[in-house]
Amino acid sequence: VQNNFISRKKLGILGGGQLGRMLIREAMRYPLDIYVLDPDKDAPCKNYAQYFEVGNFADYDTVLNFGRKTDVLTIEIEHVNVVALKQLEKEGISVCPQAGVIEMIQDKGLQKQFYAKHNIPTADFRLINNPQDLHQLDDNWFPAFLKSRKLGYDGKGVLAIHSKKDFHKAFDAPSVLEIAVKIKTELAVIVAVGKNGEIKSYPPVDMAFNEKANLVEYLFVPSRIDSKKLEEARIIAEKVARLIGIIGLLAVELFIDTDDRILVNEIAPRTHNSGHHTFEANITSQFEQHMRAVCGFPLGETSAISAAVMVNLLGEEGYTGEAVYLGLEEIMQMEGVYLHLYGKKITKPFRKMGHATIIDKDLNAAIQKAERIKSVFKIISK
Amino acid sequence: VQNNFISRKKLGILGGGQLGRMLIREAMRYPLDIYVLDPDKDAPCKNYAQYFEVGNFADYDTVLNFGRKTDVLTIEIEHVNVVALKQLEKEGISVCPQAGVIEMIQDKGLQKQFYAKHNIPTADFRLINNPQDLHQLDDNWFPAFLKSRKLGYDGKGVLAIHSKKDFHKAFDAPSVLEIAVKIKTELAVIVAVGKNGEIKSYPPVDMAFNEKANLVEYLFVPSRIDSKKLEEARIIAEKVARLIGIIGLLAVELFIDTDDRILVNEIAPRTHNSGHHTFEANITSQFEQHMRAVCGFPLGETSAISAAVMVNLLGEEGYTGEAVYLGLEEIMQMEGVYLHLYGKKITKPFRKMGHATIIDKDLNAAIQKAERIKSVFKIISK
Repeated sequence: VQNNFISRKKLGILGGGQLGRMLIREAMRYPLDIYVLDPDKDAPCKNYAQYFEVGNFADYDTVLNFGRKTDVLTIEIEHVNVVALKQLEKEGISVCPQAGVIEMIQDKGLQKQFYAKHNIPTADFRLINNPQDLHQLDDNWFPAFLKSRKLGYDGKGVLAIHSKKDFHKAFDAPSVLEIAVKIKTELAVIVAVGKNGEIKSYPPVDMAFNEKANLVEYLFVPSRIDSKKLEEARIIAEKVARLIGIIGLLAVELFIDTDDRILVNEIAPRTHNSGHHTFEANITSQFEQHMRAVCGFPLGETSAISAAVMVNLLGEEGYTGEAVYLGLEEIMQMEGVYLHLYGKKITKPFRKMGHATIIDKDLNAAIQKAERIKSVFKIISK
Repeated sequence: VQNNFISRKKLGILGGGQLGRMLIREAMRYPLDIYVLDPDKDAPCKNYAQYFEVGNFADYDTVLNFGRKTDVLTIEIEHVNVVALKQLEKEGISVCPQAGVIEMIQDKGLQKQFYAKHNIPTADFRLINNPQDLHQLDDNWFPAFLKSRKLGYDGKGVLAIHSKKDFHKAFDAPSVLEIAVKIKTELAVIVAVGKNGEIKSYPPVDMAFNEKANLVEYLFVPSRIDSKKLEEARIIAEKVARLIGIIGLLAVELFIDTDDRILVNEIAPRTHNSGHHTFEANITSQFEQHMRAVCGFPLGETSAISAAVMVNLLGEEGYTGEAVYLGLEEIMQMEGVYLHLYGKKITKPFRKMGHATIIDKDLNAAIQKAERIKSVFKIISK
């Protein structure tokens, strides 16, 4: 009668940054030992794991040997060695998200072809093998964005091509040229898929970007987009997750263009900046949800507890060095403000050093607090 | 203009059990490096600190040397070497709660004398130096409880003395004899005092005990006691905190007797089992609040977000050994249930292995879920 018990498992994470650190905050409430691999000996997860290994998650042998120490292996960054992950899958390690899913998502070209094949709405694109290919496109393709097929994130590996005059800037690497969408607004939906096929989405969030840093700067929930459009966004996001066959979290970033069309922008097979508010604003945080999905546990409820704004706390321009905090005590006195610093010793301009979530039944009041935080809280160096 | 910045501090914790572990979950969101001292090499904090030292927190040299590595030194258990703490205070380490406060609270005799001196209502008592002293008391003193002056907690070091027939069981150590109160109900108030004298209390909680284990088994908030009595309890608790002069958290356990008198039962100068629900049920958790108070940060809001029940998850009777979990998946499917396991490898009968908090706007619905958890979730050994 008592053979359906659960014993401690070893949960491995490729990547030891802030996403891993926040995953650990939740995973530590469950019967899990945490193993982390990161190339940085001072990574945010450093002091919060049963086992922390300094090593390159893009290296075959490193990932293979690390993975063999774990029962369940997951990621907090997608730029990992998928060949090693495939071998680990053969050896019976539970790799979630699966190696094949990560492999597809690593390549923006494969991603776009996948959308095209399955009629997922997305901006028109052409695969570009080398800069010469650009000259074969007619003028209607521009303005556009040239995106490196691999290793891009947070605006890295993305280049605006306004016209032929910009062709000389193009990467000499396989890329995707994506026609520039006239964006009305951007939103994100995080979808979780459990091992038994169970699927649960978080309520969509509105995103506002810092143009200079090319990073999400604010999130707002509930989204101010009309509910029909939100439902459409949810259906698209869940369709992508189902078609890819992912187990774990899939963060889906979407555009709404000036013609009111919803287009899939980018996807990430992991916890995501667009879900940081879920710690305080939803019944189950995205970090707990990811842990539940990859460990084969039932998914948690995703519904919202409160309206919220999330603001990323970036390293101040003009400062590089050991981080110190200005205005910390003032924001600690603001009701409903939850500060999350990531334990990074060194600040750099626009480096993601932390975030704050503001909970308020009134979204506008939360927005005002977020603006106050931006104006008084600064991360500088001594 | 920019000299009021805050740099990382080293926060030391004497004790590395579940209270320390939950403190770390909150402290890791702030610019703090965590140092932990515990005699158990497998203590719950083991893998969650910048620096973890295996050592006896009751030993002078161990505490002195450990404390010298930190900027702020706090406790998660009060049975620590206060002579070393006094020396550390002289050396300029910020010890919170202060050595003198811990010293008084370590001794149930001094505690009771303190209540008597300041007219804090508490059960009648006599100090007992050795078992012979009991014979000098008349029959009106019994039934009573004999409590060892030092090293008691969770019912340890407490003996029921129904009549003279029980005298032979008495400890041969300085004790307090406390007349048995006719208890109608038990409640607790956690008070936080900041470095600037700021004081904030949590809403009182009702406590239900497991008689066999002599442990809190359930907490209920909001308390079902009438609001006038609750206000009286808050005033008494805050008065005790002020008079003791503590900086940090003071957990005050109180009785209401059958004559409707409120009496102080026990106090603890730290985070406490009676505040575990605050992670999910209050704006600021007791763990964050303790961190704020001892680090000299402003206190957070303590008001309730939701009704809640907290249930302690104890090792099942009849099982000692490596812990496994029965019914885990079932309780993970219950909405509004937050599981907190403490990472203890070994289970023993009635060992505190974790807790669950149930959030529901309807307290009765939460109570039903708590009972369901008790009936389906078991911690046993293989």
